[in-house]
Amino acid sequence: EDLKKQEPTESSDPYSSDPERHPVLRINSQKPFNAEPPPEILTDSFITPSAVFFKRNHLPVPQVDPASYQLQVEGLPGGGVTFSLEDLKTRFPKHDVTATVQCAGNRRSEMDRVKQVKGLSWGISAISNAKWSGAKLRDVLLAAGYGPDVAQWARHVHFEGLDKDVTGAAYGASIPLNKAVSEEGDVLLAYEMNGEKIPPDHGFPVRVVVPGVVGARSVKWVGKIVVSAEESTSHWQQNDYKGFSPGTDWDTVDYKSAPAIQELPVQSAITSPADGALIDSSDGSVTVKGYAWSGGGREVVRVDVSLDGGQTWQVAQLRSSDEGQVPKAPPTPGRAWAWKLWELTAPLPPQVQELEIICKAVDSSYNVQPETFPPIWNLRGVLNNAWHRVTVKITEG
Amino acid sequence: EDLKKQEPTESSDPYSSDPERHPVLRINSQKPFNAEPPPEILTDSFITPSAVFFKRNHLPVPQVDPASYQLQVEGLPGGGVTFSLEDLKTRFPKHDVTATVQCAGNRRSEMDRVKQVKGLSWGISAISNAKWSGAKLRDVLLAAGYGPDVAQWARHVHFEGLDKDVTGAAYGASIPLNKAVSEEGDVLLAYEMNGEKIPPDHGFPVRVVVPGVVGARSVKWVGKIVVSAEESTSHWQQNDYKGFSPGTDWDTVDYKSAPAIQELPVQSAITSPADGALIDSSDGSVTVKGYAWSGGGREVVRVDVSLDGGQTWQVAQLRSSDEGQVPKAPPTPGRAWAWKLWELTAPLPPQVQELEIICKAVDSSYNVQPETFPPIWNLRGVLNNAWHRVTVKITEG
Ligand SMILES: [Mo]
Ligand SMILES: [Mo]
Repeated sequence: EDLKKQEPTESSDPYSSDPERHPVLRINSQKPFNAEPPPEILTDSFITPSAVFFKRNHLPVPQVDPASYQLQVEGLPGGGVTFSLEDLKTRFPKHDVTATVQCAGNRRSEMDRVKQVKGLSWGISAISNAKWSGAKLRDVLLAAGYGPDVAQWARHVHFEGLDKDVTGAAYGASIPLNKAVSEEGDVLLAYEMNGEKIPPDHGFPVRVVVPGVVGARSVKWVGKIVVSAEESTSHWQQNDYKGFSPGTDWDTVDYKSAPAIQELPVQSAITSPADGALIDSSDGSVTVKGYAWSGGGREVVRVDVSLDGGQTWQVAQLRSSDEGQVPKAPPTPGRAWAWKLWELTAPLPPQVQELEIICKAVDSSYNVQPETFPPIWNLRGVLNNAWHRVTVKITEG
Repeated sequence: EDLKKQEPTESSDPYSSDPERHPVLRINSQKPFNAEPPPEILTDSFITPSAVFFKRNHLPVPQVDPASYQLQVEGLPGGGVTFSLEDLKTRFPKHDVTATVQCAGNRRSEMDRVKQVKGLSWGISAISNAKWSGAKLRDVLLAAGYGPDVAQWARHVHFEGLDKDVTGAAYGASIPLNKAVSEEGDVLLAYEMNGEKIPPDHGFPVRVVVPGVVGARSVKWVGKIVVSAEESTSHWQQNDYKGFSPGTDWDTVDYKSAPAIQELPVQSAITSPADGALIDSSDGSVTVKGYAWSGGGREVVRVDVSLDGGQTWQVAQLRSSDEGQVPKAPPTPGRAWAWKLWELTAPLPPQVQELEIICKAVDSSYNVQPETFPPIWNLRGVLNNAWHRVTVKITEG
């Protein structure tokens, strides 16, 4: 494949063994590597190819030998239990879960335009959809000693990555216990992505996939799992990835006052046409494409598209599979982990020189997206789910 | 208690045996009886007294003899099973669930001002909070023969009321099977409301309470439960209580194209001051009160209040119990069934003669309310969760 060679780096650089990446990716940060695909690639396929799936690393990519890989599980009666990769593959049923992963900061660049926020300047593509395969976290916890007695006191399940900063501190996060152990929660310890071993950037050899939940909790290169009465004390759980009121600034923020982001709100964006694109009026019509997704397993039930800045709305066609593939049966309520791709072809309004195209999605709880960014502005620039707008110019063929 | 006598009615009137109601209620329809309390009563207490709990009847209140009451359960292997009221009280553990019930049409009058909608003209008080006690639907279904074999084919649980129209057709609705049988779904067959037998208007002797879900599925006077592969064919399930795009009108509406409303989106409203109220400037401050709630067991995590039409926001104080009562431990994620009452006291901005006060809530999935009604307008006037706004005048002491 057509992969870009990284520039030579000093051997003391902890990022020197980071993998090669696809040249089409738009890089927001090189070290740690954070990059997203061009928007139009996202809607080319229901399943995002792994090479162009957005990359969101907090630390250098660890080099993990699959033969010696060990997953430690702690906090359960009887003490710690360790599983090899082979254990995960052979001792537990293999489950496939098609799940969309979205970064908390997806679309941050739009919020930043309202008033500056702190964080990587993501466009609309810090979201992708893959088929993940692996053991269910529930099954592994049960094998390690989880049971009704533990449910009495435990409330959270922590994940620790094998990626470490210069002080040796690992990336970490936690999720609520009931999500972790629920049969319908579908949390995976995944060892495959899109039918192949997980690429280094996505957590080789084993990562957590927490469907319906912000990407930050789907810990990659997972090395340790701890069942606990308390939330993870990780920086990323306690002092990051939380939402605040627009009136809260860096002088007044109290990170304890807000819950850690878990399930994400309903989201959608237009992947084509691009903002500023030229549309040939002789076509007579315009085709608008995009994605829509909601957290918590809530299915997207409708996407409304406006060609006139929100005055009137048309309903887009939704799809849940790639063309030529038979769509699966609709998911059980609360287990719709994958996005919908959507499309609308509509006549060009007569005699206009410019269109403001907007999309907004509705999920199965009938939650909707807010109209604009200022009322959801927050200092960290997360949870950016206001209507997505692009302006296009109509040109005479 | 101070209850209003109904006017005498002809004996052929099916509503002639409807109960007496509290005179403070604001009546939207007399037959069937639909009424809501004045907003400021809602925030007087965390638990809404039953007499002023909003009433939403679709049909005449049936007179049910508790001694001969029978609940039929059908659709399970081995044929129908019947439970008496005594059975429900003695054969199953009694569970208390404090849950807010909201009508799909709450706040319809505000949407109607944008463009006319069909339905009862509810203000902001078609929502109330009670402590419900009864048997878990899960336990009753298990006793009636529900098991893993049924889970293979069943998808819905139907409820049929003992309230009937002139043709003998009963009120009916259904909920997804996984909500009905989940241990964490907390669906009750309730025989008590706020510690007393359920009043006639609220479903005496037994009603369903489906926490986190639109009121229309919490079928009152429940007489029959059917486990099924299909949704209820009831009018209220198929051709009502669904949301549509603002562009959909009565000529183009296809009821099959939208899912039946189940979980509701995040909601909040200001109960005090009332729209048009006069505030004495010599007080120097204003106290704003209201409620906030979200469907699906999502906890309200923040309420933002603006005194300047949405330019700036302050965070309100939330409470989950009545004053003097010790708040319970926070609910498990996904089981926050009760509303939050909230309050903000803030200095009056200097030299203004009028304030536009706005509230907006955020739930644990960080879903937010939309700013205005036009983009969520729908022909049936349901799901009215745009920001609530009241305008008050500042007067010189
Ligand atoms: Mo993220
Ligand atoms: Mo309702």
